[in-house]
Amino acid sequence: MPEKPLILESLAEARPSSYADQVYGRILHDILNGVFQPGARLPTENELAERFGVSRPVVREALARLRVDGLVEARRGSGTYVLSRPSQTLPELADLEDISRFLRYQELRFHVEGQAAALAAERRTEKQLAAIVEAHETFAHEVGRGAFLPESDRRFHLAICEATGNEFFAKALEGPEVSLTSFMNVSLALTRSGSQARARRVIAEHAEIVEAIRTKDAAWARVAMETHIIKARRRMTDGTIDS
Amino acid sequence: MPEKPLILESLAEARPSSYADQVYGRILHDILNGVFQPGARLPTENELAERFGVSRPVVREALARLRVDGLVEARRGSGTYVLSRPSQTLPELADLEDISRFLRYQELRFHVEGQAAALAAERRTEKQLAAIVEAHETFAHEVGRGAFLPESDRRFHLAICEATGNEFFAKALEGPEVSLTSFMNVSLALTRSGSQARARRVIAEHAEIVEAIRTKDAAWARVAMETHIIKARRRMTDGTIDS
Amino acid sequence: MPEKPLILESLAEARPSSYADQVYGRILHDILNGVFQPGARLPTENELAERFGVSRPVVREALARLRVDGLVEARRGSGTYVLSRPSQTLPELADLEDISRFLRYQELRFHVEGQAAALAAERRTEKQLAAIVEAHETFAHEVGRGAFLPESDRRFHLAICEATGNEFFAKALEGPEVSLTSFMNVSLALTRSGSQARARRVIAEHAEIVEAIRTKDAAWARVAMETHIIKARRRMTDGTIDS
Amino acid sequence: MPEKPLILESLAEARPSSYADQVYGRILHDILNGVFQPGARLPTENELAERFGVSRPVVREALARLRVDGLVEARRGSGTYVLSRPSQTLPELADLEDISRFLRYQELRFHVEGQAAALAAERRTEKQLAAIVEAHETFAHEVGRGAFLPESDRRFHLAICEATGNEFFAKALEGPEVSLTSFMNVSLALTRSGSQARARRVIAEHAEIVEAIRTKDAAWARVAMETHIIKARRRMTDGTIDS
Repeated sequence: MPEKPLILESLAEARPSSYADQVYGRILHDILNGVFQPGARLPTENELAERFGVSRPVVREALARLRVDGLVEARRGSGTYVLSRPSQTLPELADLEDISRFLRYQELRFHVEGQAAALAAERRTEKQLAAIVEAHETFAHEVGRGAFLPESDRRFHLAICEATGNEFFAKALEGPEVSLTSFMNVSLALTRSGSQARARRVIAEHAEIVEAIRTKDAAWARVAMETHIIKARRRMTDGTIDS
Repeated sequence: MPEKPLILESLAEARPSSYADQVYGRILHDILNGVFQPGARLPTENELAERFGVSRPVVREALARLRVDGLVEARRGSGTYVLSRPSQTLPELADLEDISRFLRYQELRFHVEGQAAALAAERRTEKQLAAIVEAHETFAHEVGRGAFLPESDRRFHLAICEATGNEFFAKALEGPEVSLTSFMNVSLALTRSGSQARARRVIAEHAEIVEAIRTKDAAWARVAMETHIIKARRRMTDGTIDS
Repeated sequence: MPEKPLILESLAEARPSSYADQVYGRILHDILNGVFQPGARLPTENELAERFGVSRPVVREALARLRVDGLVEARRGSGTYVLSRPSQTLPELADLEDISRFLRYQELRFHVEGQAAALAAERRTEKQLAAIVEAHETFAHEVGRGAFLPESDRRFHLAICEATGNEFFAKALEGPEVSLTSFMNVSLALTRSGSQARARRVIAEHAEIVEAIRTKDAAWARVAMETHIIKARRRMTDGTIDS
Repeated sequence: MPEKPLILESLAEARPSSYADQVYGRILHDILNGVFQPGARLPTENELAERFGVSRPVVREALARLRVDGLVEARRGSGTYVLSRPSQTLPELADLEDISRFLRYQELRFHVEGQAAALAAERRTEKQLAAIVEAHETFAHEVGRGAFLPESDRRFHLAICEATGNEFFAKALEGPEVSLTSFMNVSLALTRSGSQARARRVIAEHAEIVEAIRTKDAAWARVAMETHIIKARRRMTDGTIDS
């Protein structure tokens, strides 16, 4: 693995990774390097526990997270199989054990921000809409120039939370140990390392959310936001998406 | 309005349109022809009731449906305003009062098929997946040839219902008075009359659903299906989408 | 098993039960009779296939349905275990293979009626509310007299669908092969055979739904309806609920 | 209003109430004291702005929150009407402007904890279940003794978040400025001031959530939690619920 990426410093410092995150990171490492190929069966829990020098419950927790993240699949009575091989550039972007945290954070965002987008569509004032549009255009402009500034991405998402009229949605996404910015770094680093086509897709996803909130279509706003968050997750875990 | 379009015969026969549907159709007609422009205020309920020779509750029901469909908006204490102007080709495709029924049907589909897609992702067998893929490819192939066969579109959606393992999802979408095919005619007529870009988007939406079900990602399958149904509704009611 | 119950005649005639439904019914029969006790491991798929003279995919489908219904649980790498023992009076109420259809129907209702209740809370007119209240009171009155008339229960649920202003919700629940009444027979037969406390709970669940729609609280209406449908399912499959 | 209640100190200090919260509190005060009776029309936005010495947008925000909380209702083209009169004991329990924050916090909890309960049902280990059960029993025991300890209530809810295996659910509910405990104080103060019947209902709602998580029924766990949070909100805003 290359030198520790700077962009995740705040994230990495936030909390020492748990054993399960470390095992998650090491299995992910082996999937990335082709030690475990898509379609292949992983070693048993016992074998993995021995290999990594941890207890079986720790292995089980790491496997559970890999399943939730769509990287492996359990087949009844048969074992755990590798489903997909994430982007090869991943290890350059983040400590692998941080990936696990990123994906769990996306699980929360799916629900909090999906609901926030629906409420924003129902309740946003003209001024709140203007703030959302402004943040969207700033981010799109920066991306067009080849810059991927997490702070701009964060401002876009927080402007939507703001438009719910309920300050607790923004609070739910950020706290003393958690910052949207550090997570967006992971995601944007991947986008930056990818093709222009990928960058354009991120902007197009944002544009859908803006349009849904503009036209006050709550159902559309929710699914547009949910789609965006699901796609961000897939861009990280599925290396077959054109980069 | 041009001669009665043939494609909707089965739909039109299914049930005489209610007064509210007729009033809906006539207001929609006036929006399409620019009598009521986007941004303009509609006449009051009383004026509309007199104009169309119906009671105020009938007008109120028609306005409620126009609101749900995103064509008009009520502003508190001020009146009802036109939000958007649907595709000008709409009257050639369907009796306007049928549009109202189409949009209400989409409201049901949003929930039934969104859930069906999620369950299909969780439960589909390899054989059921193959049936979904086959229906998708047949439809895409036909659209590529310039044909828009509602029966193929219907087969795709029913194959997903089938993969839930619960026969009641398919039954919920079709009955003696309701046939997916007749509704898809409306939707496909609009797609056919539109650009190749529009046709490609429909296929791309189907492809997302297939991929989500293939990778057994239930959350993604649900939002991919919900997105598809919302977009179909918008292609009908928003004339500014490139056709 | 006692003589074929009359109440389900229309349901039974609607569609010959599939092999999987039959196997489901026979395993359920053995669970009811204590052949398979809660906590016990079921025979393997192969053994079950031989025992019932069907192929393994049929057994697998039946087991999948038992899992969805919460009667059994698969433990990874270990087999399928009995979770709970349904009400012993079940076989007097319905052919066991019909239970499977009832539970799948409840799965659809959970989504269709949950959404219908939310829309009814948002859109109901005073007249539609009065119809819901009237149906609720008629049903409650009949139950108070010891009668459990499925037709009254059906009228309550359809009045809510009606109040959505979207006729397709009611159509989704009923069709030529499906009638709410026949399903409610199953459910009500169980309630009738149970205690007065159980009957009071059903009425209390209806009252919650009515109150939520009356106060126009869409979120509450949805969860009140969802709770009602989940409870109906549990009253059927969990014999430990006081009857 | 009586002396400032101690129990809310941490909440009150967390953030100076906004103007809209203050106006919310004053209108709520007038509803509580019968100045504005259920069924009565509130003064216009202009009149309210003059009365409270604030701008119209501030009034509009306060009214929007009262609508979301189900205390008032806007009738198209007619004005804003009082819907219900909250519990008269409310002002003894909390600064009225804090009620607004409490209700907005419940809106977030509805989504975050509903999803957490569903995930807990799917993923909880035996050990995590034991922690949930233990917290439930401790709280029920305390309530049975007449004590209403917010810390015990908090432990119950956080144990469920814990069982998701995703630490971000707990983080979403608590932060430097937000503590579940302070909010639970409001809620529990109301329960304590109420009847034993009310206390038993709170415990019964918790018991439903526990049972759903125990039986791994994710759909049930979600609606049981959502029901609990909706009821807590109604116990605060609807004075007609038996106290």
